[in-house]
Amino acid sequence: MTSTVPTPVDPRQLREVMDGRWAHVRRDARENLRDPDFLPVYGETMQEARERVTRAAKKLADSGRVGLGFPKEFGGEADSGASVTSIEMLAFGDLSLMVKAGVQWGLFGGALELLGNRRQHEKYLRDVMSFQLPGCFAMTETGHGSDVQQLRTTCTYDPATETFDLHTPHQAARKDYIGNAAKDGRMAVVFAQLISRGRTTACTPGWCRSGTRTAPLRGRHHRRRRPESRPARRGQRPADLRPREGPARHAAGPVRAGRGRRHLHVLDRERDPPLLHDARHAGARPGQRRGSASSATKLALDIAVRYGDVRRQFAAPGEDREIVINDYLVHQRKLLPALAKTYALQFAQSTLVETMHDVQTAVHVHGQEVDEAAQRELESRAAGLKVAQTAHATQTIQMCREACGGAGYLQENRLPHLKADTDVFTTFEGDNTVLLQLVAKGLLTGYRDAFGSLEGWGKVGFVADMVRETVLERTAARALIARLVDAVPGVDDVPMLDRGWQLKMFEFREKHALEGAIRRLRKNSTTDGMAPFDMFNDVQDHVLKTAQTHIDRVVLEAFVAGVDRTEDPDARTLLDTVCDLYALSTIEADKAWFLEHGQLTPSRAKTLTSTVNQLLKELRPHLITLVDGFAIPAEWKAARILEEEPDRQEAMAARDAELRAGSGEAAPEGTATDLDVAPAQ
Amino acid sequence: MTSTVPTPVDPRQLREVMDGRWAHVRRDARENLRDPDFLPVYGETMQEARERVTRAAKKLADSGRVGLGFPKEFGGEADSGASVTSIEMLAFGDLSLMVKAGVQWGLFGGALELLGNRRQHEKYLRDVMSFQLPGCFAMTETGHGSDVQQLRTTCTYDPATETFDLHTPHQAARKDYIGNAAKDGRMAVVFAQLISRGRTTACTPGWCRSGTRTAPLRGRHHRRRRPESRPARRGQRPADLRPREGPARHAAGPVRAGRGRRHLHVLDRERDPPLLHDARHAGARPGQRRGSASSATKLALDIAVRYGDVRRQFAAPGEDREIVINDYLVHQRKLLPALAKTYALQFAQSTLVETMHDVQTAVHVHGQEVDEAAQRELESRAAGLKVAQTAHATQTIQMCREACGGAGYLQENRLPHLKADTDVFTTFEGDNTVLLQLVAKGLLTGYRDAFGSLEGWGKVGFVADMVRETVLERTAARALIARLVDAVPGVDDVPMLDRGWQLKMFEFREKHALEGAIRRLRKNSTTDGMAPFDMFNDVQDHVLKTAQTHIDRVVLEAFVAGVDRTEDPDARTLLDTVCDLYALSTIEADKAWFLEHGQLTPSRAKTLTSTVNQLLKELRPHLITLVDGFAIPAEWKAARILEEEPDRQEAMAARDAELRAGSGEAAPEGTATDLDVAPAQ
Repeated sequence: MTSTVPTPVDPRQLREVMDGRWAHVRRDARENLRDPDFLPVYGETMQEARERVTRAAKKLADSGRVGLGFPKEFGGEADSGASVTSIEMLAFGDLSLMVKAGVQWGLFGGALELLGNRRQHEKYLRDVMSFQLPGCFAMTETGHGSDVQQLRTTCTYDPATETFDLHTPHQAARKDYIGNAAKDGRMAVVFAQLISRGRTTACTPGWCRSGTRTAPLRGRHHRRRRPESRPARRGQRPADLRPREGPARHAAGPVRAGRGRRHLHVLDRERDPPLLHDARHAGARPGQRRGSASSATKLALDIAVRYGDVRRQFAAPGEDREIVINDYLVHQRKLLPALAKTYALQFAQSTLVETMHDVQTAVHVHGQEVDEAAQRELESRAAGLKVAQTAHATQTIQMCREACGGAGYLQENRLPHLKADTDVFTTFEGDNTVLLQLVAKGLLTGYRDAFGSLEGWGKVGFVADMVRETVLERTAARALIARLVDAVPGVDDVPMLDRGWQLKMFEFREKHALEGAIRRLRKNSTTDGMAPFDMFNDVQDHVLKTAQTHIDRVVLEAFVAGVDRTEDPDARTLLDTVCDLYALSTIEADKAWFLEHGQLTPSRAKTLTSTVNQLLKELRPHLITLVDGFAIPAEWKAARILEEEPDRQEAMAARDAELRAGSGEAAPEGTATDLDVAPAQ
Repeated sequence: MTSTVPTPVDPRQLREVMDGRWAHVRRDARENLRDPDFLPVYGETMQEARERVTRAAKKLADSGRVGLGFPKEFGGEADSGASVTSIEMLAFGDLSLMVKAGVQWGLFGGALELLGNRRQHEKYLRDVMSFQLPGCFAMTETGHGSDVQQLRTTCTYDPATETFDLHTPHQAARKDYIGNAAKDGRMAVVFAQLISRGRTTACTPGWCRSGTRTAPLRGRHHRRRRPESRPARRGQRPADLRPREGPARHAAGPVRAGRGRRHLHVLDRERDPPLLHDARHAGARPGQRRGSASSATKLALDIAVRYGDVRRQFAAPGEDREIVINDYLVHQRKLLPALAKTYALQFAQSTLVETMHDVQTAVHVHGQEVDEAAQRELESRAAGLKVAQTAHATQTIQMCREACGGAGYLQENRLPHLKADTDVFTTFEGDNTVLLQLVAKGLLTGYRDAFGSLEGWGKVGFVADMVRETVLERTAARALIARLVDAVPGVDDVPMLDRGWQLKMFEFREKHALEGAIRRLRKNSTTDGMAPFDMFNDVQDHVLKTAQTHIDRVVLEAFVAGVDRTEDPDARTLLDTVCDLYALSTIEADKAWFLEHGQLTPSRAKTLTSTVNQLLKELRPHLITLVDGFAIPAEWKAARILEEEPDRQEAMAARDAELRAGSGEAAPEGTATDLDVAPAQ
């Protein structure tokens, strides 16, 4: 599909299409969130960091930006897409602030809003939004991570006294990774097994105000399937919690409910992980991790690409000056496929946020019925994209660190912080392996099985009565993609830059993986003497592959649709080439599979490598344009290597002049063309 | 080659064969270096950390362990293998201490010893060994990393005053990443271009005592090729260096020679990277990075494997208890190939250290002539193994972090520290990509080109007169390997556990990659109008592949030889299976290549996957034994998750009892069998 990309392409056109439906939220953040108080600070003590982030959170609340997702009657805007986008933009700044904001207004506030009743909304929501009532989210336990069905903390209702006892029966039931608990939190949403009138029910989130009382909420997860176990809500009074070593708000580390009854157990400050909590099952606002991983990845690429354009190493023969490292093929092989995937994931993320926004608006704003099947599919897709986005962040930020050599290891160049702060993203909101299984389960059962039930993957019996045909549903731009795929005659002899061929490869792989997994599970389930766990475990790698290939296809389809709606012809040609690179480097990374399954001949496989190299060569002149397209304001970069090279500033100035001459206008303030040189932090 | 491995295997037998020639050094460290002062401390400020590490370095010097590599007449033992092994053992403790020790006694002390003259030895070496004279190593520059030929710092001899001027002509020539410079260093080895009697010579290391004087040394690297530019050494007096903001020893951050003459420029404390320096060209003692990466990798695997054996997640159908995560296939797929590669690299490292020790002993102790060709081959192999070991460390420690979920993110569980402290290993002693090119260059030219000359890879003209036949020289256990390979009839229909087939696959791939790279370089060099840089750049990925495949083969051959010399039959059977897993998972990781080049049919490729899965199943019961084989004393682990689970302690106690019953003896103190439960830090 590629024709030669003209030079220069105006990065503002890329920004335009990448910004999507909530462009106004992004624009607002770029223009008005340049306050240095929202940027990371290096070298402070944990105490200093906490105090600073608390101040910044308050300032953020005062700015009015945190209410985007809350109901209008409490001063919000009931715009969940805007809320997710806003968090994503915040993640270009200090990730600690982003996490704190995520706990306060996403997990804690979101749980209060989505799970609480009218009276509770009226009592608390305004204070949550204003940060007058900082809160925590206590779900994950030492022994069970985020497997909510297995949580062991109990909350027992005593009808005689009309109180609740919150109890941690053993060490493995201690609550871990409670954001906001170290210093600020005054109230917590707590997940526990509710024991009411002698019956143990499934997981129940509730909340407790440390030092004062706890008020259980309805058990959202089991409600759908076990209405008989729904806890009584009316007539219950809050339980009294007497912390053993002072209230949670004064805890020096994460709070865990202690061994004894009615106690909060306070741990050491050293044990406090700065950025940890776990949220996937909260029913709270989704998308924090995806968006934050995406922003951090863009920052890292921005830094590495610009540095690689001025850093020189080794002289070419006959030349005095050494070669800039971006000119090396192997360096391009590191940077460009990562850049292409970052674009791809951005389009997939936008599509997902739009769909989620529409579903949530329909239910929460317009009061429509929940379409459970659609909701599950959406949650599965969100899980899949979280895996893709966070794994990509971890790999890419590491690669960028290495691509900057020793400079990438200096704190002042931001990359070490990006690495440290995003590393845990692959774990929280659910470990990536567990989430992949969730995606696979959705695919395998045709979404008939209950979402959220992660118990016993060994129960492969469900496969036996599986009726779903493995016909893949296309996820974006259905008509366009069908047309492209149908136009491809076969798999050989088709040019690799044919988008239809690329799509067909992705589809074939997913379908084949899915059918194979089903076949193998069926076979195991009829094998005599095979333990149920082994039936599943024997094919676990194959099952995860299914999920992975599904995610890849969803992402490619979103990218194709994104290119299709790009209006500026130059930007469109460039994005088209970037999409080629995403598709072909993804196929290349799994070349063995395509060879093994007869979709590539050895000679086509070699052509694939040289085609990717050719795309790198074509995209090399656009490297800077592609990071310009992220439109990250200079104030947000805070990386000293971007300031140091006078060469660079000259080169960039020349390029800007060329660009402005081409577009016939002056560059407006705050757009990509004047973002090249980062200021001092 | 695999027969079923008996259970249990005594891990002391594994330790025995892994410990190798310098087993006494390892034993001594395990028994006598358990001092908590040598362990990492979490949560201290940079100031506290520096002071503590300085005290620990002094204590280490007092223990007499640092002199192993120095000449006997100065109180050392002239045993370079012991010295490298000692650093490797030190790396199980605090990596900051290891790095400081590496700077003081490896880079700084080693340069003084290897490059200095008799008078200088007598004047300084004792004080270096006792840490009375803490020193620095100033090579890397901002603009040129470790490309020593391109360093821009100048050292100009003024015959009139008989002094030297050390000069940093521009920002890119500032010295970076100078270990020991922040606080302790009182003298530095400085690399600069020596300008003597109007001629600029190539790189020259010298040393300067900050605030007092500088004494240049002979230029080691250019000496071999440009004898006319050898700097005059006799009759030169040290130059006077007057630091602008106090002497280097008081510098708050890394010292860079400033813009002006005779100045040291002192930077901010925040800019100080705790673990950075760069050493490859120093002529100093090699192997620090490899050994340290290896130790950190073992620690991470030890923690993740033991945690995975007690951590449970998700219940199997019909069972009350959840499944330990080590039982999941996908978890095994993460841990076991990494474990197998760790064993493989340990054998390769031992082989390399032995060879280096023998060469260095011959030259430095017995005064024999340097065999330049052998020396270059050895240096190339060291570079290759550094790449393999450090890349493996980065990947494996990250994987272990993720395999421990949120717990892996807690400081108290050591993994975050291991990650942060080893991350830079892929960069220092030379960026891994640059080192791979060095290895490839050695292969391509048959080692005829000069070592250390990294200039102008574009000069592919050298290929035109290349005469070397691409017959691979086997590197370890030549006769055994030849016999195994020759016994293989073809490539199909041979069982994949046939060691000869595995070796043949590794050999074929290397030979084919090498020949292909040569062919393509030749073709490019005769293509009209192709710029010299493009001739090389066009095939850079192919060239690096050549190096990678070479390293893989060297490592496999070392592993095969190691298995061959294992005496205990049970340990031998187990190691044989681990070697199968290393070989097959390496082939699996590059399956596309073997399919593309007709060495695997699609059906064989599928067999490969199932064979690897089968090996995982076979090795599962030996997971703990395999980490026990690393014989890491409990005191060194300092990971709280290893202490927390009472289940675990029970299980381990039962296993120990079984083992002791099997071997008919009580477990001696300090061996693997009682290392299971780490104490509080």
